[in-house]
Amino acid sequence: MRVGNKYFRTLWPREPGSPVLQIIDQRQLPHDFVIEDLLTLHDTARAIAEMHVRGAGLIGATAAFGMYQARREGSDLTDAAIFLTSTRPTAVNLQWAVTRMLDAHAAGKDLYVEAMAIADEDAAACQRIGEHGVELVKAIAGRKSLGEPVNILTHCNAGWLAFVDFGSATAPIYKAHADGIDVHVWVDETRPRNQGAQLTMWELMEHGIPCTLIADNTGGHLMQHGMVDICLVGSDRTTRAGDVANKIGTYLKALAAHDNQVPFYAAMPSSTIDWYISDGIRDIPIEQRSSDEILRARGLHDRRIVEPLIAPKGAQAANYAFDVTPARLVTGIITERGICAASLSGLAELFPEQPPRE
Amino acid sequence: MRVGNKYFRTLWPREPGSPVLQIIDQRQLPHDFVIEDLLTLHDTARAIAEMHVRGAGLIGATAAFGMYQARREGSDLTDAAIFLTSTRPTAVNLQWAVTRMLDAHAAGKDLYVEAMAIADEDAAACQRIGEHGVELVKAIAGRKSLGEPVNILTHCNAGWLAFVDFGSATAPIYKAHADGIDVHVWVDETRPRNQGAQLTMWELMEHGIPCTLIADNTGGHLMQHGMVDICLVGSDRTTRAGDVANKIGTYLKALAAHDNQVPFYAAMPSSTIDWYISDGIRDIPIEQRSSDEILRARGLHDRRIVEPLIAPKGAQAANYAFDVTPARLVTGIITERGICAASLSGLAELFPEQPPRE
Repeated sequence: MRVGNKYFRTLWPREPGSPVLQIIDQRQLPHDFVIEDLLTLHDTARAIAEMHVRGAGLIGATAAFGMYQARREGSDLTDAAIFLTSTRPTAVNLQWAVTRMLDAHAAGKDLYVEAMAIADEDAAACQRIGEHGVELVKAIAGRKSLGEPVNILTHCNAGWLAFVDFGSATAPIYKAHADGIDVHVWVDETRPRNQGAQLTMWELMEHGIPCTLIADNTGGHLMQHGMVDICLVGSDRTTRAGDVANKIGTYLKALAAHDNQVPFYAAMPSSTIDWYISDGIRDIPIEQRSSDEILRARGLHDRRIVEPLIAPKGAQAANYAFDVTPARLVTGIITERGICAASLSGLAELFPEQPPRE
Repeated sequence: MRVGNKYFRTLWPREPGSPVLQIIDQRQLPHDFVIEDLLTLHDTARAIAEMHVRGAGLIGATAAFGMYQARREGSDLTDAAIFLTSTRPTAVNLQWAVTRMLDAHAAGKDLYVEAMAIADEDAAACQRIGEHGVELVKAIAGRKSLGEPVNILTHCNAGWLAFVDFGSATAPIYKAHADGIDVHVWVDETRPRNQGAQLTMWELMEHGIPCTLIADNTGGHLMQHGMVDICLVGSDRTTRAGDVANKIGTYLKALAAHDNQVPFYAAMPSSTIDWYISDGIRDIPIEQRSSDEILRARGLHDRRIVEPLIAPKGAQAANYAFDVTPARLVTGIITERGICAASLSGLAELFPEQPPRE
């Protein structure tokens, strides 16, 4: 999408066939726009673990490229797969992409071509999510007075920065904007890592979409007062029954949406669906991250990034990175194939080739 | 309560009869413990508006002292009352305390004595809230295995720092601790002003209560996994029907508690109940504060308090300071008179002298 007057994806090879992967170092956003070269499998795994890149689709595409790097380095591919998968336990795309690369290798395919295909398919899937999801936005716009925007609330960053392009939750927003529909986005800051404040705000502003930053505590109040027309979030893992694991706090917004009859949709490419599990609260492992992310905030002071301590010295903190929103709170799921109910039967209808399995 | 090895209240006259009010400048917490002298009505009003002092009970007691200062300065008391009331629009204690001081003046009472009485009554009410509320904690402790603490979640700061002493939501916690019951407190950081991270964590740690800081997004996940036994929050204004206005985000925690059958109690001295309104969502004005609080975080870096920018330069932000939790989500209300249902009839039973009125 647009950064200033140029269009970018979130990753690309330095030149065709190169084992050097170029990425946007997302830790520097929104204050600096830095392109980083990942030269080796080790660089790439570290970039995922330390969140230079993050987000369901982008992690998958990056790990796929890591498998190509492993191949070029002559590393054992099974070891590389385990190494890459261990970096972020909740994201299913990581497993999906790495497994696909192992299968491609076993089938004697060119791993560079396969990694590029994964990236292109991710971008294409997000574009189609936009085409399906925009119909929901259009329907709301049709009930509004002239000049009144459609108010969309989103949590974390399920934007183009989390994928290869377009994003999942943002794809319908970018498409609506392209189609001339007035939209306005409420962006949850998304503590502790502030992906909303740092990434979603940045990408929406760079693309020219009206948006307002709010504390994560705010969405319930806005929904009580009719200030949100629809919630659009992403997902890091969705069960075949429609439970949605997404950034911690998503569940609270889904509860508020349900309590105020605001439609709540999760958007994701189907690579994010885990067909092997149905009960998300029981079966999805929730990553716990460093307590330092809770005890500190991160921002720009005197032209430098600082991480001041926001709690008493010696305070204890817990940092659960994701939560699970049960399917009963999800109005629908937007995928590259269309929109369906968040249920076994809804997903099975869109993806009939996926048999039930445990 | 305890600060190091000394006991403090949150405000006191420099000496008996003095028009100089001493307070803890809460903006410096948790990094510095600073006592500030408020010499004039103007100082006192500014200390409330700029949140050197904050919290339902403390604002009321501080404003009452401001009325005494106005009297000593020979100012018009009606003007002083309007001036003080305008500093924080949501808090009902401010109106209540200022009105009581006007009535005392009209009745020819000594305003110093009246201001001291308001402070003492606030402390006594909170102590009684602790005595009633501890029964809830005791009942949960009785169902726990030996050595397993009662897990309590709280939002914002409804601690002794928000009152004159003991606090409202924290009073049952301090009482349980004094009675030898194992408790552990999950403390929401409470963006944007981080009263949980800065104040609640500080006062619990100083008093020796085990506590863990969490992002505001986390409580739903904890409740889904049985890690919260009870939610205890304060209130800045409660309607006679039991709707509770409290720090923004309280409503989201109440929804999660309801969805997971976790008891959710709001604790408050009855001075916080607004007997003139019933529908909180319709009738309680919600203060909007500076967008800078959203765009920046505040913390300690290199021994200095800094407020780094956490969003893109030029970002727009909205800052609603409170939300309203409807009575249907509140398991009960803990007051100095006892515990009651969050309803017209529940509150009317505890406070029969309060006639219904609009």
